[in-house]
Amino acid sequence: MGRVALLLFLFALTVELSLGISHEIHLLRPRLASGVHPASGLSCPSWRLAVETNNIINWETVPQACESYVGHYMLGHQYRQDSRVVVYEAIAYAESLKLGGDGKDVWVFDIDETTLSNLPYYAENGFGAEVFNETSFNEWVMKGEAPALPESLKLYNKLVSLGIKVVFLTGKGEDERNVTVANLKKVGYHTWEKLILRKSSDGSTALVYKSNQRKKVEESGYKIVGNMGDQWSDILGTNTGNRTFKLPDPMYYIA
Amino acid sequence: MGRVALLLFLFALTVELSLGISHEIHLLRPRLASGVHPASGLSCPSWRLAVETNNIINWETVPQACESYVGHYMLGHQYRQDSRVVVYEAIAYAESLKLGGDGKDVWVFDIDETTLSNLPYYAENGFGAEVFNETSFNEWVMKGEAPALPESLKLYNKLVSLGIKVVFLTGKGEDERNVTVANLKKVGYHTWEKLILRKSSDGSTALVYKSNQRKKVEESGYKIVGNMGDQWSDILGTNTGNRTFKLPDPMYYIA
Repeated sequence: MGRVALLLFLFALTVELSLGISHEIHLLRPRLASGVHPASGLSCPSWRLAVETNNIINWETVPQACESYVGHYMLGHQYRQDSRVVVYEAIAYAESLKLGGDGKDVWVFDIDETTLSNLPYYAENGFGAEVFNETSFNEWVMKGEAPALPESLKLYNKLVSLGIKVVFLTGKGEDERNVTVANLKKVGYHTWEKLILRKSSDGSTALVYKSNQRKKVEESGYKIVGNMGDQWSDILGTNTGNRTFKLPDPMYYIA
Repeated sequence: MGRVALLLFLFALTVELSLGISHEIHLLRPRLASGVHPASGLSCPSWRLAVETNNIINWETVPQACESYVGHYMLGHQYRQDSRVVVYEAIAYAESLKLGGDGKDVWVFDIDETTLSNLPYYAENGFGAEVFNETSFNEWVMKGEAPALPESLKLYNKLVSLGIKVVFLTGKGEDERNVTVANLKKVGYHTWEKLILRKSSDGSTALVYKSNQRKKVEESGYKIVGNMGDQWSDILGTNTGNRTFKLPDPMYYIA
């Protein structure tokens, strides 16, 4: 094992342990191309930047040539560093706020890949390079074993200490309420003002669904001071809140 | 000179030549830290991603520790690759459009760091790590020697061939109209529907100014099918157009 490979292995191990992922190592599939500059001419770092900046939209899977690149990114230190900088900005912003003092200031958090991580699942399923399998993903969710994103948990604790209430707004269905509550509490999210899950009859896009739900939150007297998600559909649309924050997620796209 | 340094040098040279920058090489200032993971703990790649995703806002200068990182990024191949992927998406989108056929479909382009590049200026002035000097920047602009961003010029030519008209919308002042027209034509932008420059009396933010101008464009009967800029203030706000594209720019922030 070369020095770089060893370092990557140690990074992956550290991240897995700190995310509470099982000790089993998720081996990345060997590829002919390096994953960074595959033969097709696609630059995987450029692909990822274009995804994160909402330039590439409506994509279904990570390009095959970038599976290894995304895997190393997610298990390595850069994903954690990237999340850390976003949360650092969010904490500085939250600390700068002059709150209403009426208990109506709220922070909207998405759940998947924002407050809870499905990385253990995606590590077993090609880091988004495989077509999404709703059945096996739901089986994973129902286990209630998703670890917290450590950076988001840090922000959550800061918000609670500042007196900013938390609203979880997720595309998960109402039928997953119990397991979601248990999972959130288990990993350290102990209190919240609202946990908004999606009704099975709601057929709108995530962007429209989340906009409508945030509108209802504001109409019931709350002020959304912050809004954080890993998808652009979490933070675009209407009633987006006073300031939005985008966490990284190169594994999937939700319209 | 080590192998990596030599490669960086050759990349920089290639980019400078293809951007039409003078053959003089802009030496990056030596720094104690590598520029990638400086001693302060700041990750420059994470800083850049947070800037590109609009998580870090209202910043005045590139962090000193990241000057070398940003310089190598801008002069190296990654900036060009990143721009190329965005333009690739934009071309695919433009080709997919069903146009109105009434000559009213327009594409809005910002100018600085979108259609024209001020990289020769910023390479001499710390790649954004120095406080912005309006006097020396305006002197550079008045020379009319800004090269085209090659990728944007490629998109421009494709749009013109498709029959999509171009609207340039820039924060440059009306007093720079003549030199801007000459500069655009000199580097290959030969035709456009409108060139909207800012009146000196306009004291609004770029976001408000550009939203208002796009509204006027739409009110006069045009349909904005695409909108491309390097700043979030180019593509957020109102009347943003049917789809927006964000080019990279880690050198400065305009609200």
